[in-house]
Amino acid sequence: MSSAPSGSPAPSDLFRQPVIAAPMAGGASNPRLAAAVSEAGGLGFLAAGYKTTDGMYQEIKQIRGLTSRPFGVNLFMPQPRISDPSAVEVYRQQLAGESTWYDTPLGDPESGRDDGYEAKLAILRDDPVPVVSFTFGCPAPEVLASFARAGTYTVVTVTTPDEAQAARWAGADAVCVQGIEAGGHQGTHRDDPAADGTGIGLLTLIALVRDAVDLPVIATGGLMRGSQIAAVLAAGASAAQLGTAFLVCPESGANPLHKQAMTNPLFVRTELTRAFTGRPARGLVNRFLREHGPYAPAAYPEVHHLTTGLRKAAAQAGDPQGMALWAGQGHRMARALPAADLVDTLVAEWQHTAWQGSEPPEAAERNTAWQDQEDPAGDGGPAGTGRTAAVGGREDS
Amino acid sequence: MSSAPSGSPAPSDLFRQPVIAAPMAGGASNPRLAAAVSEAGGLGFLAAGYKTTDGMYQEIKQIRGLTSRPFGVNLFMPQPRISDPSAVEVYRQQLAGESTWYDTPLGDPESGRDDGYEAKLAILRDDPVPVVSFTFGCPAPEVLASFARAGTYTVVTVTTPDEAQAARWAGADAVCVQGIEAGGHQGTHRDDPAADGTGIGLLTLIALVRDAVDLPVIATGGLMRGSQIAAVLAAGASAAQLGTAFLVCPESGANPLHKQAMTNPLFVRTELTRAFTGRPARGLVNRFLREHGPYAPAAYPEVHHLTTGLRKAAAQAGDPQGMALWAGQGHRMARALPAADLVDTLVAEWQHTAWQGSEPPEAAERNTAWQDQEDPAGDGGPAGTGRTAAVGGREDS
Repeated sequence: MSSAPSGSPAPSDLFRQPVIAAPMAGGASNPRLAAAVSEAGGLGFLAAGYKTTDGMYQEIKQIRGLTSRPFGVNLFMPQPRISDPSAVEVYRQQLAGESTWYDTPLGDPESGRDDGYEAKLAILRDDPVPVVSFTFGCPAPEVLASFARAGTYTVVTVTTPDEAQAARWAGADAVCVQGIEAGGHQGTHRDDPAADGTGIGLLTLIALVRDAVDLPVIATGGLMRGSQIAAVLAAGASAAQLGTAFLVCPESGANPLHKQAMTNPLFVRTELTRAFTGRPARGLVNRFLREHGPYAPAAYPEVHHLTTGLRKAAAQAGDPQGMALWAGQGHRMARALPAADLVDTLVAEWQHTAWQGSEPPEAAERNTAWQDQEDPAGDGGPAGTGRTAAVGGREDS
Repeated sequence: MSSAPSGSPAPSDLFRQPVIAAPMAGGASNPRLAAAVSEAGGLGFLAAGYKTTDGMYQEIKQIRGLTSRPFGVNLFMPQPRISDPSAVEVYRQQLAGESTWYDTPLGDPESGRDDGYEAKLAILRDDPVPVVSFTFGCPAPEVLASFARAGTYTVVTVTTPDEAQAARWAGADAVCVQGIEAGGHQGTHRDDPAADGTGIGLLTLIALVRDAVDLPVIATGGLMRGSQIAAVLAAGASAAQLGTAFLVCPESGANPLHKQAMTNPLFVRTELTRAFTGRPARGLVNRFLREHGPYAPAAYPEVHHLTTGLRKAAAQAGDPQGMALWAGQGHRMARALPAADLVDTLVAEWQHTAWQGSEPPEAAERNTAWQDQEDPAGDGGPAGTGRTAAVGGREDS
């Protein structure tokens, strides 16, 4: 593993433990959750997506009152129009029954498509924060350069090696490598229905991205256990970012029905769907997703605006079957611990994995007595489930 | 990581290096490739799928002439009929143009659906081999018990925690945990179109399976590099199984066009498709897959029989656009090395990763000088791309 010639520090040089709480737009991420994670030695994130500029700034002020440790802010990139207006109109009609059922009008699909990007950038440059990450695209080089001048560390979310190269070219400090396992939106730079079904699993994507660019990697997607953190670090990531794992924490602002659904055995599968927002996002398969997913158009953020009221009404009615139950593929492993305890637990699991494997590889040579299945290891002891990993710190390069 | 109460040895107790060459039915796996891998300290596999019973037995005799090391044989489970005959007939009509183009009749969809399972079992029990693995289902407990009596180590391929529990219940010695990244067929026990799009990424699936069962785990899906092997071992797997990585070896029996396609930049994506066999399998997106994938029915092995002749004709015509170019998501990282060299390279990469992280976790505590981005690690050195893993041998439990 080589040092980044760009001189980019690994993001985990910014905080003590290689654990990042993923930004979760829509309410789950808030100053309380983010501060708790940062205080525990990880990196907490605020999610500016869907918020007003002022709402974002208020949260930044709040977290500064709660912790002096580094934290991050995530921005959604403005979205070019890719949708056919008639496809949005057809979907509006297909949602008419939902509107009646939840007694709520559908939203105006043209309620804005830039998420206040420029205004949010202006705030973050005037009053810099430690880390800014981007989702749904790559900022212009000038934007990333201005953050570099402000001392802000920048991260671009990527889902393919090509997107990682774009981030490298634009001057990002690091990439957040998001596997297909991740809950919520895929951070794909351009939503292309022709690419549906081609999303890449995290462990392969890390290897592909490391082959393509020399930037530090933050790994995300389906991570719920310290052993998985050990794994992505072994694969060459600098830190692990976890969303669903933190969504269920008491500090998280996610709706209680959403939190409960993570481990509710009624919900057995997750799927990528455009049903709620018009962009592929992974959620628990519920009635709304099953019914509307098959024909939902590629039309973000139009569909997001259309369904916002419906989802709120479903939550108010206590009906998880009409909510967007964003969840990563590891959702059933969620543990509803306070955020600081979760960070501690993850770190302990990771270090436990680390210690188990602290003998050097040479000492681990096995005999090959496959014929002797009564005592396969030849040591008279019970057979373990195999090798384990020792994960040390950053290399001394 | 706990020992397996069942007393199952980890599969990696059977051979020196935690590297398994995946069984690849259809020609890629052969005695030469499997023997080279076993001779190099890994575990080679023969693929009995699509072969006659005698063809399988001939290969077993051949590999015994090439190596005295352990090897495995993979069997396809018999498939219940799930297809609608009229859906197969419609697909047959949709393939008429292909039949004309390649000047080849379509095959008889009713050419058998059990892959000679019982006869192959009889051979393998009469003349036992070291390892037998199963794909597309879980054998009956009696079958696994008979292998246990014969001294054969048994592995069941699983793609969900529920399938892992079925394997545990039936008495398998280990599970081969196959992530959605894997090339070729998913080993799903029952093909259910309603579950399309719900396949789980390898790293999350390993954690889910380890939570569900106490069996040794062989990890497979998208693995191409030693760093990924280090990662799955860190995640708790006992060994890593690689298909696409070995497909391009000179010893592999895969068609040269298939081998070349792995790193041909014309082919940029893989997708799971029923176009070639009627069961989801991952291949490079080519003309045939793009054209017929969208409507190919869930009808295995009927569709396999239908298209066998077409695929052979396409290969003979030198046309990769009509072939089943099975490939895992890491295909572009393929290295056309002799199999023994590839095993050595993978092991060296894995041990390199291991050595980099050999300092204990405590020594790795970082400072938190995120403010000081000129010298983020506070050690005056260049910033590395983060932590790395030391992977030792099996635990001494």
